[in-house]
Amino acid sequence: MKKIGIREVAKEANVSPTTVSRVLNDRGYLSEETKKRVFDAMKKLEYYPNELARALFKNETYTVGLIFPTITNPFHAELIQDIEFELSSRGYKVLLCNSLNNPTKEKEYLTMLRKNQVDGIIVGTHNKNIADYDIPGLPIVAIDRSLGENTVTVSCDNYKGGEIATQQLVNHGCQNILCIRGDSKIKLPANSRTLAYRSVLKKFKLEPLVLEVPFVKEINEKNEIIKEFLETHPNIDGIFAGDDLLASLAINNLTNLGKRVPKEVKVIGFDGAQQTLIYNPELSTIQQPIDQISKLSVKKLLNMIKGEKETDELFLPVKLIKKNTA
Amino acid sequence: MKKIGIREVAKEANVSPTTVSRVLNDRGYLSEETKKRVFDAMKKLEYYPNELARALFKNETYTVGLIFPTITNPFHAELIQDIEFELSSRGYKVLLCNSLNNPTKEKEYLTMLRKNQVDGIIVGTHNKNIADYDIPGLPIVAIDRSLGENTVTVSCDNYKGGEIATQQLVNHGCQNILCIRGDSKIKLPANSRTLAYRSVLKKFKLEPLVLEVPFVKEINEKNEIIKEFLETHPNIDGIFAGDDLLASLAINNLTNLGKRVPKEVKVIGFDGAQQTLIYNPELSTIQQPIDQISKLSVKKLLNMIKGEKETDELFLPVKLIKKNTA
Repeated sequence: MKKIGIREVAKEANVSPTTVSRVLNDRGYLSEETKKRVFDAMKKLEYYPNELARALFKNETYTVGLIFPTITNPFHAELIQDIEFELSSRGYKVLLCNSLNNPTKEKEYLTMLRKNQVDGIIVGTHNKNIADYDIPGLPIVAIDRSLGENTVTVSCDNYKGGEIATQQLVNHGCQNILCIRGDSKIKLPANSRTLAYRSVLKKFKLEPLVLEVPFVKEINEKNEIIKEFLETHPNIDGIFAGDDLLASLAINNLTNLGKRVPKEVKVIGFDGAQQTLIYNPELSTIQQPIDQISKLSVKKLLNMIKGEKETDELFLPVKLIKKNTA
Repeated sequence: MKKIGIREVAKEANVSPTTVSRVLNDRGYLSEETKKRVFDAMKKLEYYPNELARALFKNETYTVGLIFPTITNPFHAELIQDIEFELSSRGYKVLLCNSLNNPTKEKEYLTMLRKNQVDGIIVGTHNKNIADYDIPGLPIVAIDRSLGENTVTVSCDNYKGGEIATQQLVNHGCQNILCIRGDSKIKLPANSRTLAYRSVLKKFKLEPLVLEVPFVKEINEKNEIIKEFLETHPNIDGIFAGDDLLASLAINNLTNLGKRVPKEVKVIGFDGAQQTLIYNPELSTIQQPIDQISKLSVKKLLNMIKGEKETDELFLPVKLIKKNTA
């Protein structure tokens, strides 16, 4: 059976599709008799009033595009779930775009979202060659990412997070502390975590050691980079990882190398999503306020859609979840 | 700045919005001069050809709705990521609906998806009072769920999974094996896991012990149910859990009770999503073929959209991931 659209309604009512869409949008002169014919046809065919028609003529789709690098990372999964909840409870639909860290795919998604007339976009990608997000008239909020003048960035207090994590490792007597981070060439608020790490080490006259693991790599590649580095740097006794995935990969590799965590090497992650803490209840980590990030991103986006001016918010509070690995 | 829509293009070209949409859809008689005026206005205003207009008149939106109970569960996260990838590479957009296990929200989503004229729906919810998915003309694929005559179900070989897991626990000498499962009143292909569990126990003359933890409960509630049950059943020496979340909650509670896993109690989960295996590399589990489930669900849905008849597929192969907990 065919899906019921305005063509089917038009045929049943013996009018043109344009007349049906005029009835739906209450636009132009229409006789009562025509309106009745169209409504009767809609009723008979169980036609659902078409949101597309409404959106097309009102120039408002109540649709928001989400472009994220991945859904499977528990931090992004929780963010997307919270954002979708906030948006749907305000009558907005969510078009999900999973860029899989592919700049071409990201650009295609952006074009698709513009063609589908989304009212706004929330972005959380980490590609190097970013798509052009500087689109006049299209509100965009970026989570943990700086995308240009016309977009707003929401992020946790990354500097504080880096400071707490590094201080915790120093307090536990670590002398050779590795910082595993993303690509330093990408402009990210999270870059200030490494600044904090360096600053704390300097205070204690310790040498920094930084390993860059680009976020866009596949998990297996990330694992290989970490494995090789840990094999060739046996003196490391503390690790501050850029996210809980990197922390877990480090811990798994240390275990495989026969190193005991936390006795010989202490490890501290970043993000602290609820599911991560259940699957690995031993992991010490810096927890981001995912609910606050989601709520604030949606609030700012909806304000921008209403035409209000919004500014960056980069210092949502983090906290140390102290478990067994550090 | 206002978003550019057909109204703005119409104003710039000094024609009616209906004329603009006629130009976009190449419908009805239009003079070359009018067409040129509209195209010039679109170019000047950087107007993106509107997919909504195309969708409205073609009665095809190239949009698929996904209704899932949660995104944060790693199994669902990986499923959604894979499904979105399969659909987007075939030119389909994804409207994400997160029912949060709320039947009212699920029903609202279904209405919203119909109003937005999606071409099809993939459902993975576990609500008791299910929304009416028996919609003539709307292709629906359900993952791990039986929704009625007009929908198609895709699921792994649940019986085999239950058999392998229970056999593994018996082989390791477990005598008091608990099966933690979802609500038995909901019609799910996964119910056959418990049948397999009972069948294996019967063969070895062991007594079944089943704890129902409804999927729709909050994680904290699930944890409380498991905690209380384990406290009052100290003889349990083996656990077959309905998913890796339940397995992890059981392991964490056993640890808190001073029970050693696997020495005193062996635990085996279900799902085996990639992220779960990284965060908890010790967990033994029955792995579902998430990539096959995703690919097949999308393939069947697209066939149904094309008007082809499809049937259930309930036996995608599972495998034991043997780690340290069982």
